[in-house]
Amino acid sequence: MLLLRRCHGLTRFGHAHIQSRRHLPPAVLSHAARLCSTHDNTSDRHLSGLSWKHGLAGLLAGAGAVIAFGLHRHEAEHPAAAAAAQTAESSSSLPVFSQEEVSQHRSLSDGVWVTYRGGVYDITDFVAMHPGGEKILLAAGGALEPFWALYAVHNQEHVLEILSEYKVGELCAEDLKKQKPAESSDPYSTDPDRHPVLRVNSLKPFNAEPPPEILTDSYITPSAFFFKRNHLPVPQVDPASYQLQVEGLPGGAVTFSLEDLKTRFPKHDVTATVQCAGNRRSEMDREKQVKGLSWGISAISNAKWSGARLRDVLLAAGFGPDVAQWARHVHFEGLDKDVTGAAYGASIPLNKAVSEEGDVLLAYEMNGEKIPPDHGFPVRVVVPGVVGARSVKWVGKIAVSAEESSSHWQQYDYKGFPPGTDWNTVDYKSAPAIQELPVQSAITSPADGALIDSSDGFLTVKGYAWSGGGREVVRVDVSLDGGQTWQVAKLRSSDEAHEAPPPPGRAWAWKLWELTAPLPPPAQELEIICKAVDSSYNVQPETFPPIWNLRGLLSNAWHRVTVKIIEG
Amino acid sequence: MLLLRRCHGLTRFGHAHIQSRRHLPPAVLSHAARLCSTHDNTSDRHLSGLSWKHGLAGLLAGAGAVIAFGLHRHEAEHPAAAAAAQTAESSSSLPVFSQEEVSQHRSLSDGVWVTYRGGVYDITDFVAMHPGGEKILLAAGGALEPFWALYAVHNQEHVLEILSEYKVGELCAEDLKKQKPAESSDPYSTDPDRHPVLRVNSLKPFNAEPPPEILTDSYITPSAFFFKRNHLPVPQVDPASYQLQVEGLPGGAVTFSLEDLKTRFPKHDVTATVQCAGNRRSEMDREKQVKGLSWGISAISNAKWSGARLRDVLLAAGFGPDVAQWARHVHFEGLDKDVTGAAYGASIPLNKAVSEEGDVLLAYEMNGEKIPPDHGFPVRVVVPGVVGARSVKWVGKIAVSAEESSSHWQQYDYKGFPPGTDWNTVDYKSAPAIQELPVQSAITSPADGALIDSSDGFLTVKGYAWSGGGREVVRVDVSLDGGQTWQVAKLRSSDEAHEAPPPPGRAWAWKLWELTAPLPPPAQELEIICKAVDSSYNVQPETFPPIWNLRGLLSNAWHRVTVKIIEG
Repeated sequence: MLLLRRCHGLTRFGHAHIQSRRHLPPAVLSHAARLCSTHDNTSDRHLSGLSWKHGLAGLLAGAGAVIAFGLHRHEAEHPAAAAAAQTAESSSSLPVFSQEEVSQHRSLSDGVWVTYRGGVYDITDFVAMHPGGEKILLAAGGALEPFWALYAVHNQEHVLEILSEYKVGELCAEDLKKQKPAESSDPYSTDPDRHPVLRVNSLKPFNAEPPPEILTDSYITPSAFFFKRNHLPVPQVDPASYQLQVEGLPGGAVTFSLEDLKTRFPKHDVTATVQCAGNRRSEMDREKQVKGLSWGISAISNAKWSGARLRDVLLAAGFGPDVAQWARHVHFEGLDKDVTGAAYGASIPLNKAVSEEGDVLLAYEMNGEKIPPDHGFPVRVVVPGVVGARSVKWVGKIAVSAEESSSHWQQYDYKGFPPGTDWNTVDYKSAPAIQELPVQSAITSPADGALIDSSDGFLTVKGYAWSGGGREVVRVDVSLDGGQTWQVAKLRSSDEAHEAPPPPGRAWAWKLWELTAPLPPPAQELEIICKAVDSSYNVQPETFPPIWNLRGLLSNAWHRVTVKIIEG
Repeated sequence: MLLLRRCHGLTRFGHAHIQSRRHLPPAVLSHAARLCSTHDNTSDRHLSGLSWKHGLAGLLAGAGAVIAFGLHRHEAEHPAAAAAAQTAESSSSLPVFSQEEVSQHRSLSDGVWVTYRGGVYDITDFVAMHPGGEKILLAAGGALEPFWALYAVHNQEHVLEILSEYKVGELCAEDLKKQKPAESSDPYSTDPDRHPVLRVNSLKPFNAEPPPEILTDSYITPSAFFFKRNHLPVPQVDPASYQLQVEGLPGGAVTFSLEDLKTRFPKHDVTATVQCAGNRRSEMDREKQVKGLSWGISAISNAKWSGARLRDVLLAAGFGPDVAQWARHVHFEGLDKDVTGAAYGASIPLNKAVSEEGDVLLAYEMNGEKIPPDHGFPVRVVVPGVVGARSVKWVGKIAVSAEESSSHWQQYDYKGFPPGTDWNTVDYKSAPAIQELPVQSAITSPADGALIDSSDGFLTVKGYAWSGGGREVVRVDVSLDGGQTWQVAKLRSSDEAHEAPPPPGRAWAWKLWELTAPLPPPAQELEIICKAVDSSYNVQPETFPPIWNLRGLLSNAWHRVTVKIIEG
């Protein structure tokens, strides 16, 4: 008998006793999984028509969900067995298999076998319950270690516990020896050092944000504090041999060296804010659980980027009016690759890529210095006004195309779905890939739960505001009384007072804002709210439920913090 | 003693007894006026630095507020006197003045005198209480008739009652005779006939919208039903002598005849939705009173416009990269003029005007026929994705400029202010002129209060959705339970099924939508709500209070209708 228990998250449902996994109808498993809404294994059944490469990518994209795993955790029937299973290396009376035998089990019909630290596991029944979906099949017939090295979220005790239950044998000693090199390699071992102040949401791949209290201390975010959102290990790129390949234009592929980009094209500076589609996901998650990295309010930062304009490079590579007749998209591929060799990829609409006013850069500098490894050294794309996911780092290939990128991140991840859509009903084709982001703002000070000394009678509230598509933030309203009344914050758009305002439709950088106002009449607690208005007079929605979506993207409802007033 | 009474609107305050208007400090008058929040006479004090021309324009813009006047209505102390005053023509023992004497009273220091139907009135004390503000000074020293003919909202009994109280004499017979021609002329006498189905919000100038139930019956709105928003009388323009003047470019002014526009430039078709900034104002007004025409949900319509591209005409007139160095705006002036000879005017940013993707037209056809008089015959500007106020009708002049238009409608009317701003605190410079509009949607069927027969078990909901800036509506969510749950409506983007989708950022036309869903479990009443999402994933705000603004513009909160369920 199996005991599925400890469903973490909002939907703790206590102890569900299920007789036998193997004999349960899929509907029951699906239901159980849905109750355990930390993840939903059924979600990826809809991916069945996709290549496994996409599926694998999905695992990375959903890394946050896997971190939050902790469900389908179970114990073997006997505590002793459970304890033994912790190591997954205990000696046993189980049969010994060769790698060749293991390799014959690579499908649901033949059985799905994997090896891990010398053990052989038949995980056929687990496939349907895998938080990352059927992408687990990529490991079929081979060793788990390289995958778990890449998706380090698996390195948790309860994951080993789950695995232990599926053990069917031992790998023969000779074949185990051959695996050793793979086992010891950590694709993240060459990732750069990061500043310890960052709040890490995922270590491998590295995803981290600065504390809100330092985020708005400078208009330009120092690169060390700039939020980091990697999908894969940081690639090691030699700038001397770096080549950017441009494809899809008449005359065939053209390559540019870093030196070419620096010397053959005018250098443009663009101050642009980059925001992750998942910024403020944790707030949406509090309303109802979503799947993804638990970002706070700081998955957004602002830098001065310098480089060649994409437009200029495309023109040099053969773009012209004839191409504009049929082309609709420009694809980017990173030099960061997953274990199958697939690169991170995305695309943007052609008109954004080639417009003189689009300001899309192939940037080789960030804040006046060469781009740090975490941000795309030596060259990254910067697509101002557009979701960060399209500003592909470590860009190695650009392709002009009639079609949108088929990459997982374009087709199956960064999209917004209606509040009623769950992992059972999601139709990926029904929503457009996120490009321009909606209007956003947040309060960086005071922090939620802060104690405010009432002795000086005034309160200062600070934050940031930004909108996608080059739409300038024209106003930030701040309420100190939970939305009853509103005051207008003072906006700051640059470090340099004399800087000209951006042309209409090209306001790529955020505005920092500040309001100092008298503390409202005696109150022990204040709910402080901010909401921004952009130049198209779009506004932020009031609450999260009407914009809730299963991936927790586009989380831009009013930001609220509650503070306590104390007498000084 | 004066009796200020019958304060219409939300703030009925019963009978306020005020001893003498003449001796009241301005603060008291101001306070009284504020209580009577149907309008606020203090609002236009802030206009004191502006030309009267602007002020006059403001009166037109605020015509709805004047219609809703009915305040500061008062009776003379004796009922008999009040009755006599109704005609304002009764013989009296008052002194007789010449026009020359009247003309010497044209300021607050010299007194403000006007004539009306042979009577002479000293309205000095009324100036501060005039709903249209100090623009009343334009009439100082002369006859009211031409102004009241233009702003026909004055032709109401209670306005005559107010006037009667200020009578100080009679105009001498000889001078009265000279006035006759002015008195008899109605600048609206040549306005075209309109379809009787339209719901008229103001007759002079003509402002009307189609009933919601016919609005979404066709994707292209027939011109007869297309909402009409005129600021002034419809000008009579002879197409044979029509001249469009283009100024501000090197080489001086260039003129184009209608024939020039038709033959010298390629003809472009653009299907574009036009929406008034005041669409759905009546809903915002229900939350808290605003100033403006009381539009329902139909101050929006969709047509196929054909004409020369503004870009092409500007290029032909001398626009080039040198001009782009200094120019920032393109101004439009209509051939519709007010009594001072000032034309309706507006401007748009240069980049919108000259962009190949901006699709700004000098349109001479609407839905395949010459543009009807109400919609700008023979030539109007169509600025897709932008508030209707910038699509200047009967366009007579275009000017390229470094500055935004100084027109009233650009500087002092179509702007969005914070919810906390009232007519005492409004700072017109603090908000940008509305250009792109935010995402919008509304339910056209069923109507609010409709009775729904439950016998077939299903309910069909229909409506429109649109967003500014060429952002395509990507989804409309409909709730049948007051926002608890949401279903996705089916979108229709064209009459022709095979029509290609618009390029990104050029979705100028609305989408019609429809949802047929089972009636929720037994309920006597349903609150139906719609909300749209555009391609930048901006959404509509939930409620009106957080977007409330004193002019009732940009009213795009969720649209809600309540229906009653009856058994068939």
